[in-house]
Amino acid sequence: MNLQTYLATRAADVDAAMDKFLPKAKERPSTIHTAMRYCIFSGGKRLRPVLCLAAADACGGEISNALAPACAVELMHTYSLVHDDLPAMDDDDLRRGRPTCHRVYGEGMAILCGDALLTEAFIVLVQTPATKRYGAREFITELARTGGSRKLIGGQVMDLEGEGKSLTKRELVRIHSAKTAALLTTSLRLGAMAANATPAKLAALTAFGSHLGLAYQIIDDILDVTQTTEVLGKTAGKDHQAEKSTYPASLGLARSRKVAAELTRAALDALKPLGKKAIRLQEIATHLLVRDY
Amino acid sequence: MNLQTYLATRAADVDAAMDKFLPKAKERPSTIHTAMRYCIFSGGKRLRPVLCLAAADACGGEISNALAPACAVELMHTYSLVHDDLPAMDDDDLRRGRPTCHRVYGEGMAILCGDALLTEAFIVLVQTPATKRYGAREFITELARTGGSRKLIGGQVMDLEGEGKSLTKRELVRIHSAKTAALLTTSLRLGAMAANATPAKLAALTAFGSHLGLAYQIIDDILDVTQTTEVLGKTAGKDHQAEKSTYPASLGLARSRKVAAELTRAALDALKPLGKKAIRLQEIATHLLVRDY
Repeated sequence: MNLQTYLATRAADVDAAMDKFLPKAKERPSTIHTAMRYCIFSGGKRLRPVLCLAAADACGGEISNALAPACAVELMHTYSLVHDDLPAMDDDDLRRGRPTCHRVYGEGMAILCGDALLTEAFIVLVQTPATKRYGAREFITELARTGGSRKLIGGQVMDLEGEGKSLTKRELVRIHSAKTAALLTTSLRLGAMAANATPAKLAALTAFGSHLGLAYQIIDDILDVTQTTEVLGKTAGKDHQAEKSTYPASLGLARSRKVAAELTRAALDALKPLGKKAIRLQEIATHLLVRDY
Repeated sequence: MNLQTYLATRAADVDAAMDKFLPKAKERPSTIHTAMRYCIFSGGKRLRPVLCLAAADACGGEISNALAPACAVELMHTYSLVHDDLPAMDDDDLRRGRPTCHRVYGEGMAILCGDALLTEAFIVLVQTPATKRYGAREFITELARTGGSRKLIGGQVMDLEGEGKSLTKRELVRIHSAKTAALLTTSLRLGAMAANATPAKLAALTAFGSHLGLAYQIIDDILDVTQTTEVLGKTAGKDHQAEKSTYPASLGLARSRKVAAELTRAALDALKPLGKKAIRLQEIATHLLVRDY
């Protein structure tokens, strides 16, 4: 199976599981359930859940045991997009090629929809089968701490507060780590934990995730400059418009690409303890570096 | 110890525990942590956490084992207030006698602050010591389902969608159950679970909570009509202004008071299986019926 087929197959696994986990659209009150499904079934790349499943695979686990954490990290990611897109934050009209949640359902409903997706992440995650090493307590702690005010939310706060300011490289790395790398890393870790991974394998995936996450964010910021809104499915050129400090803004495109390539190499190095089983993770990391959307 | 002293003592227990659980205000990014503490340490009545502790007490458990769920339900409640007060929802300037979160920190930060309080609820709850009957899986399932799109959030959706419409008594009970009674009941249940309560005791507290929750909401709606903004610490007369269907609006004050008294009696009846140990819960239910703020 080539990588594109693998990614499509795993994304389809996630979509099928998500459809089972989420309340049906007609369930009352149907507005919120329709809105939740609109945001979730929107043709996203499913990067985080696929990383979760690939990590479970790399640790010798069953994919079926990692579907709950895979859906949970996607729910967490989607809620953060819905809230970040709100007029009071990044004020965006377009996401994944379609009107943002608040443009379709109104601002109040979009706030509630994000809240519901966030809460649903925990409803779903707690259904992960316990392994010898890890249970509900470890799964929930992992996701909640990553989603909290010190990581994901803290990253968005620093991002908003950094607009119009010139940030140091260190501050930029801090924001990217909190906003992006943390949830990518947690996606991998939860997949590994669902596969009862040894602490050594968990540590390897943690290192992989933190390098990959930074590389991913740098590429994302490069694409914001070089690509069109049509290709991205979200408004291009937003960072420049919001006067955000980014790698391409401070280092230029060529040097930013070089840093992303170095980080990807470091990520691949970190995978070594996992051996051949990590082939899909290697392929995904390499693919993300050269992606164009 | 009389009831007022008991309530004050338990509220102080909750505040001390909350201070330990929450990130310090100066921890980076400090804006979000300052905002979280502004919302939490605002002189609220701490009804839900006190019910949680009193339920643990009534089931023969240690208060110290119920502090994590007590703080978790207060975090969940506070997040819902912060988001409900936003301009896109109930648009309120005053809460617990002080400016609402978005009035102080801006709308974007208030959305993120609510998100962080919600996430923190799970960070804290998962720290509850497991008992023979209940562990992280049961605790998280209980709170997440109550906070989700079918209960707490669903209730707020139905409430928003019901504005300007005349609702049936059945619809009204459905909204009150989802918006208010569910979290009161979960507060009691989590306290009982932290005390390793038998299924019979848990069922008794569930019945108590659902009656008490409806009574509480009816009294709340009565006070919205009869009290001043000063006494309430939140804008009085909001329901009438937003054309919300409420018990006092549809049945009048006198009949609404009668219904609240009947529900309180049913709540007290439900406590019988707990015997004398439930004395504080009895006192609280009776006190809530005659409260004036």
